[in-house]
This record gives sequence, structure tokens and C-alpha cells, in this order.
Amino acid sequence: MHRTKIRVVEDALDANNTIARANRDDFDRESVAVVNLMSAPGAGKTTLLERVIGELDGVRPGVLEGDVQGSIDADRLSSLHVPVVQINTDPGFGGECHLDANMVRSAIGALPLEELDLLVIENVGNLVCPAEFRVGEDARVMVSSVTEGEDKPLKYPLMFRACELVVINKIDLLPHLDFDLDRFVYNLEAVHPGVAWMTVSARTGEGIEEFRDWLAGAATRAAAPA
Amino acid sequence: MHRTKIRVVEDALDANNTIARANRDDFDRESVAVVNLMSAPGAGKTTLLERVIGELDGVRPGVLEGDVQGSIDADRLSSLHVPVVQINTDPGFGGECHLDANMVRSAIGALPLEELDLLVIENVGNLVCPAEFRVGEDARVMVSSVTEGEDKPLKYPLMFRACELVVINKIDLLPHLDFDLDRFVYNLEAVHPGVAWMTVSARTGEGIEEFRDWLAGAATRAAAPA
Repeated sequence: MHRTKIRVVEDALDANNTIARANRDDFDRESVAVVNLMSAPGAGKTTLLERVIGELDGVRPGVLEGDVQGSIDADRLSSLHVPVVQINTDPGFGGECHLDANMVRSAIGALPLEELDLLVIENVGNLVCPAEFRVGEDARVMVSSVTEGEDKPLKYPLMFRACELVVINKIDLLPHLDFDLDRFVYNLEAVHPGVAWMTVSARTGEGIEEFRDWLAGAATRAAAPA
Repeated sequence: MHRTKIRVVEDALDANNTIARANRDDFDRESVAVVNLMSAPGAGKTTLLERVIGELDGVRPGVLEGDVQGSIDADRLSSLHVPVVQINTDPGFGGECHLDANMVRSAIGALPLEELDLLVIENVGNLVCPAEFRVGEDARVMVSSVTEGEDKPLKYPLMFRACELVVINKIDLLPHLDFDLDRFVYNLEAVHPGVAWMTVSARTGEGIEEFRDWLAGAATRAAAPA
């Protein structure tokens, strides 16, 4: 029974990768850099975007918001006057706990790709399944909040291994927690040696320029001729 | 395509419910009350259990730990000298983001049910899929940390609807957050009117007796003749 299950999962991932490549071709054709932003629920992805998305000098950004239900995050970002499209995984997609390539594909038509340099895809808050489904992105960013504890890289290794950058958020709360940053980085290095990381507080703005510069750089890197 | 997918999901949930009933029969035969403990990653389920599991007067507890990988949480609880069994959803179960009835079934043999009054099943940290899979439990408890934000009941309604109790954790951090407890409870009431809730800090111990009493009461209620 387990063997059958694994086969079904592999077939689903194959189909997903095929659609992800089609998405990627569409993004490449319009020279849009795509960042897949992942985290646990409540780690601060939307607050982080609110901080930076309107301040990317020379970069025209758009956002694809993935949620199980509702449009709370898309509504929050709408005041920033950048194109924001909402995907709900429920209904239509069975209430999935992650975005997949087909869901992103269904939203591409609603995005003015020719007017964008950077598309940030905010995934469903979840530390397991988003890591398994490529959606056609250039880079993946994990937001990990210090309130979640130092052990998260060890407990959800695939997620921390599948990303190019780890943004350690909510550092304004460090004085009030038992969180040991060195221990977190040690655990992170154990599952993803050499991965880039930075510390920020989306709430106070501390460290936020570094993330803004990284995002702007992602757009520039994608635009450069290969 | 969506219709086919929904059919497959329904079949899987039917099979799960059948196995959940078999689990429930086994638990009932030994008069073990079973609590399915769910939350987002890092909401503090294990710390909460560390606080209460050794202090349940007259109740003999056991714990089933569900994680994608590793045994960090089971190791933490082992010092409390109660039976602890670890289930990993990866490998064997394909790295699933939730426990299902079959995984719990596979672990029942390792649990001394005849020596237990209460079994707490700590689910994989996730606010989507655990709500869809009954495992044979009497009650479901959601732990929601105040650091996750007030909007979580609206964004993950199935999860907050599927539980009998919401434990609002990390209230020691309230002075350092913009979290509005009234707003959270308002959102919770909107998706699950009348659900029981309590506020605790697993870190400082504030409010912890109320949760301990609720757990002890769950064991007593299950032992009472129907």
C-alpha cells in the first residue's frame, strides 16, 4: 500500500513539474523574476511584503497571494498600488495546503506580466508540502519567525533545504524569548550548509533594507542575459 | 479534472474514517480518552505537554508524537516518565503533512493502552490537513499562539471549526505584540460560535492549571459509562 501511494505521489509531482516549466517559460518570455515566498502560518510574510513591495527602486513588482480561503492578505496589499491577484486553494482545488504549478498557471492570465519585473508568490502558510511543489519560480525564500523555536530546520528539513534564502523574522521579540539565534543557525547549517540567511523585524523595520535589496537583486539577476 | 480530484479525496477520507473507527474501538475497549492536539509549527504543543503531562492527578497519560522526521519532541517528553511513541510521516508514509488514522493504527501496538487513561496525539504542525483526518480521537484541541496573528481563524477556518477547545498560547508575549485578543476571539466566534477557549503561557505557566484540568476532565468523561 505504501508503495502504491509513493507511485501516485511521484506521478503527481511529475505532472506538476511539467506545468511549472510551462509557467517558467511564460515568466521568462516577459523577463519576470519569480520568488516563491514560503513559511509557517503567521510567520509574517504579508507584513514583510507590505514593508518592501512599494520601495523597490526601478523594479515593477506584482504579488500572487495563495490562501486556502479569503482575501485578507491580498486586501492588505491592495493599498500599495501594485498588481495583486488572489488564488484560493479551496474551493476548486480541494482546500490544498500548498500552491502547485497548476494553480499558479490558472492565475497567470490575470497578471499583467508584460508590466512586471518581479512576481512574488506568497504560498499557503505550511512547513511541509509547499517545498514539494515547484510553481515555475526562480528562487524560493523561507520566512522563519524566532517565535517558532530553534528546532524548526531539524523538524521540517525539506523546507529549509528547498530555499535559496532564509529570512529570520520577528527579531524585535528576541529579548522576550528563550530563542538562541546561534543554535537556530547551527540547525539550519546542518540541513542546508551555506544557505544565505538574514535577520529582520517586519514590525519595526530592522534589517528590512537587506531583504529589499535581495528582492531587487533577484529581479536584476533574472533580467540579465544568460 | 477538479471533479476527479475531489472524488479521490473523498475516497481517501472514507477509508480514513473506517480506520479511525477501528482505532476508536480499540481505545474504547481499554477506556482510553484520546485527544488530538493540533497547531501551526512552533505554537508550543510540546512545551504545553511538558507542563501538564506529569501533573495529571489520578490520570495515567501517554503521548503519541507525530512529526515528519526525527524524534526531538518525543525525546523532550521522555524525561517525564510517561509512555511516549513517535510516528514519523516520512519515510514510509510519503512525508505527509498530517497524521491519518492508518499512521495512528500502526503505532497502537507499541502503546500500553491497558495502562493508560488518556492518550494525547500530538499532530504534525500544520493548520490545514490535520483537520481533515480523524484518527479515532474523542476530542480535538487547537493550540494557537498569539504571535501568529488575529486573522488565523479566518484564514484556516476548517481547523478552528474542527476542534472542541482552542488554547491561546504565549500570552506572556502580549505586551510586546500588536495582537488584539478581543479581535482574535471575535474571529474565532465567527467561524466556530460558542467554542471553548482559554489563554495560557506554556513558558511562564500562566493559565496552565485550567488546561491541565480540562485534560484530566477529558479522561474522566471518557471513563464515565455512556
